[in-house]
Amino acid sequence: MDRRTVMAQLAALAAGAGQFLPGAAQAHPGAETLARPRVAMLVHPKMVLLDHVPAHTAFALAMCDIDLVWKAYEPVTTDLGVTVSPTRTFEEVSGPLDVLYVPGGLGGTMACMEDEAVIGFLQRAGKTAGLVTSVCTGSLLLGAAGLLKGYRATGHWHSCELLPLLGATLERERIVVDRNRITGGGVTAGLDFGLEVASRLRGEEWAKSIQLVLEYAPRPPFEAGTPVGAGPGVVGLADRMLRPQLEKARAVAERVGRGLA
Amino acid sequence: MDRRTVMAQLAALAAGAGQFLPGAAQAHPGAETLARPRVAMLVHPKMVLLDHVPAHTAFALAMCDIDLVWKAYEPVTTDLGVTVSPTRTFEEVSGPLDVLYVPGGLGGTMACMEDEAVIGFLQRAGKTAGLVTSVCTGSLLLGAAGLLKGYRATGHWHSCELLPLLGATLERERIVVDRNRITGGGVTAGLDFGLEVASRLRGEEWAKSIQLVLEYAPRPPFEAGTPVGAGPGVVGLADRMLRPQLEKARAVAERVGRGLA
Repeated sequence: MDRRTVMAQLAALAAGAGQFLPGAAQAHPGAETLARPRVAMLVHPKMVLLDHVPAHTAFALAMCDIDLVWKAYEPVTTDLGVTVSPTRTFEEVSGPLDVLYVPGGLGGTMACMEDEAVIGFLQRAGKTAGLVTSVCTGSLLLGAAGLLKGYRATGHWHSCELLPLLGATLERERIVVDRNRITGGGVTAGLDFGLEVASRLRGEEWAKSIQLVLEYAPRPPFEAGTPVGAGPGVVGLADRMLRPQLEKARAVAERVGRGLA
Repeated sequence: MDRRTVMAQLAALAAGAGQFLPGAAQAHPGAETLARPRVAMLVHPKMVLLDHVPAHTAFALAMCDIDLVWKAYEPVTTDLGVTVSPTRTFEEVSGPLDVLYVPGGLGGTMACMEDEAVIGFLQRAGKTAGLVTSVCTGSLLLGAAGLLKGYRATGHWHSCELLPLLGATLERERIVVDRNRITGGGVTAGLDFGLEVASRLRGEEWAKSIQLVLEYAPRPPFEAGTPVGAGPGVVGLADRMLRPQLEKARAVAERVGRGLA
């Protein structure tokens, strides 16, 4: 894709998602005719909002048609108390998607793992989607739908050890790509994940322009983003926060995994 | 006003976000008896949601009492089309805050810079707040309220050159701390910013546990997060997207700056 095409497409974004990024559209009329990748992002109660927003932002800047999908139109309440309104129900999503995306938030993930409506949707959409993707504990939900059986995958560092119960081969990486499955690590991995997927949808130059617009030049004040960097004291604190849900999730994954075997 | 949405959010926030982050208290014994820092986060139409969510998440995991503040209860529509419901109006915020936080999103920032109600609130709250903070183009709004006059500050790489028009001394850094002013760079700087502020509110160990829970061990697939790293081609693309708004913002900053001089 040459630069003029990329610019035209960025301009079309400005026209579409883009009442908030105006200007460029007028410079490149006609860009609206380019195809937009179809993205369905699952949203669910207790979703971690920070699992959702970086990927949503990257998809928007990659000029995708994005639907926030749930079983009903009632707003779902996220971890922060902020609600998110679905834009389409499961039944309304038809035809092959370019990207199916599943966020995390372990409390919500667990409920979804044994929810027939959610699993049914993921199985149906996952069968034909170009990319089947998740970040954080979302990979446990993909796994519960049987979509990671025989695939390498990752998830949030604290709970990804459950993935093999669902037939996946765990790789502790920031992003794991295996054929058309792309899974990311915990929460903030959605930024790296979003750029990776944007690059596959729109090419590297466009993805880089997204990174620059978002000024994603990270400078964390500490090195505590992994258990090794954080050290045992901090790992202990995080583990105290996360452990009770992990043990519940293990029981769910074992139960669901037996059904998949 | 969608009262039901507002009430649902108020209820969730009344629970101190603890409903979905139950572990925070568990991880820090005695934390329930500690005072909760009072945080007011401005939300406004055309706010960039990714400017808001990382800081909100860090404040929640630091067990703060968080209010999302706007002139009315009507939900504000963010850059992604996702709406956010204010939990308190300007008039309802009284007494000194521990943290005043202003997000960006240049279209919305510009409108706020000349909005008497917004400026009045920021001036009043900023006078007594422990920390006066922003990320992205939010620093232009702090500047418009006169809160950065004589302070070093930063903002989104593309528009932070306007800060001196508002009496600030520009420093192109990820985070700039000058006395009780803490400003961050564009969009994703909110992650680094959030950990920095959490560390000041709760100490380094607690902040590190937040970083680990969010698995903030960034691995961007490209080095395009700064103009230097991105190179001229990608900078050109981003500039085409952002330039029209920058020129409008310059006119606003010049107008507002004359009033501050």
